[in-house]
Amino acid sequence: MQKVASNKSFGGEQLRYEHDSEVLHCKMKFSIYLPPNVSATDKQQRIPFLVWLSGLTCTDENFVQKAGAQRLASQLGCAIVAPDTSPRGEGVADAPDAAYDLGLGAGFYVNATQKPWQAHYQMYSYIVEELPALLFAHFPLDMNRQSIAGHSMGGHGALVIALRNPQKYRSVSAFAPICAPSQCSWGEKALTAYLGTDRSNWLDYDATALLARAGTPIPTLIDQGKDDQFLAEQLRPELFLAEAKRCNWPVQYQARDGYDHSYFFIASFIDEHLRFHHAAWS
Amino acid sequence: MQKVASNKSFGGEQLRYEHDSEVLHCKMKFSIYLPPNVSATDKQQRIPFLVWLSGLTCTDENFVQKAGAQRLASQLGCAIVAPDTSPRGEGVADAPDAAYDLGLGAGFYVNATQKPWQAHYQMYSYIVEELPALLFAHFPLDMNRQSIAGHSMGGHGALVIALRNPQKYRSVSAFAPICAPSQCSWGEKALTAYLGTDRSNWLDYDATALLARAGTPIPTLIDQGKDDQFLAEQLRPELFLAEAKRCNWPVQYQARDGYDHSYFFIASFIDEHLRFHHAAWS
Repeated sequence: MQKVASNKSFGGEQLRYEHDSEVLHCKMKFSIYLPPNVSATDKQQRIPFLVWLSGLTCTDENFVQKAGAQRLASQLGCAIVAPDTSPRGEGVADAPDAAYDLGLGAGFYVNATQKPWQAHYQMYSYIVEELPALLFAHFPLDMNRQSIAGHSMGGHGALVIALRNPQKYRSVSAFAPICAPSQCSWGEKALTAYLGTDRSNWLDYDATALLARAGTPIPTLIDQGKDDQFLAEQLRPELFLAEAKRCNWPVQYQARDGYDHSYFFIASFIDEHLRFHHAAWS
Repeated sequence: MQKVASNKSFGGEQLRYEHDSEVLHCKMKFSIYLPPNVSATDKQQRIPFLVWLSGLTCTDENFVQKAGAQRLASQLGCAIVAPDTSPRGEGVADAPDAAYDLGLGAGFYVNATQKPWQAHYQMYSYIVEELPALLFAHFPLDMNRQSIAGHSMGGHGALVIALRNPQKYRSVSAFAPICAPSQCSWGEKALTAYLGTDRSNWLDYDATALLARAGTPIPTLIDQGKDDQFLAEQLRPELFLAEAKRCNWPVQYQARDGYDHSYFFIASFIDEHLRFHHAAWS
């Protein structure tokens, strides 16, 4: 693993690393923010952390540059890890038309079973298994106090991963998540490509479908801008909320007047999400 | 003038406009943040505002996306205006090699006198005269409570403009400004191109040289990362500070351990700058 960037930020360090991923069979980059007085090498103290999954077209850098999360993370003394959104590099399959919603930048946090995707697109295992093990080995992170969050496609990833692994995460939050990918065109396109046409195989990656068989609930927060251009057709939080109610999975849902799908929306409320997770760590 | 983007941000609005500039002879874009409960059309109340000048390679968007200034501007009830860093468009001269430090994205906030630049590169007049008049006509801004700030080339612009017009600005601040462009390679290249080889014509655009003939001092804050890669050769704050002392121009200078030239540095301390300007508005 190699450090490729380092910038002091709010008294801590905004770091970027590159490593060889075994499950993705390519080099991957991720970003990590370490708060003040926490050294990457000193593992005497282990601190809580949030994994942030970004949306379509993003890399590990968007959240780091645009969300403004470092300010409060510095105060709260937590780390934030931002992985990339797909495998990368030459030899990694991309959509034939370089579409923004399939292939590079659009891994959907699934383990692909279909050609040509299955060789590299194993983002579920990367986020749930490989990356946490790497992080634990190299940084002073407390694996018993980790939470997960994300935006749009990354909100879908965060909800799916938390619902399938509630024992691993203290809490989950999402901004404008794709709540039911089996029931929207973004999801149908991606899941068909990565998992094939048998829709029963999609249910492992559909947050709304997963609720009925999830384990013990963890604190769950969803933020949604009411002026989000993707709300009605792609995100469909009403499906998730109705099923969560039926399954007694508690969700704190915030509908925000006037906010759209952008990072301006995320920046406006990221502090509330960090405080939500911080409460779950104490 | 035409609105080209609008995003709700911290209860206010992050807006972007395009207009025909008379002094630059091209279409220009600028961004403006309006805090909550301030409508662009309601000019009954007029609010204080900060003009932010960006650095080399930037447009009006970098500060808006990366500095995280909207959070505190929302609380303080001030606007922030971010202009572009040069004229734009087809027909506007650029460096023959598309260099990052001359031409497009590198206007240096001067009024060029040399060919081929003088036709469009009149950024000093644009920032000092045309843009404020446009802003006053279209937004509820209080021209008696405006301040100016910037980063790197934009820090140079902010200091020069404030020193030449201390009656127009309540306060000035800069992150890692080019303090003495006549005495660094960035400045020598740009001022030679825009103003010609007679160095006496450069002094109107050299903050250190302007101190000796500036008017009544206004509150001045400079922030500088000690690990800034451009500090010793391009920025040279020591020249400005020595001359400011000699001329009794008070400067609050903050040298920051470990910080570099990036927006991570700006984001870490933008709140202190906003509070500094806010104090000058009350």
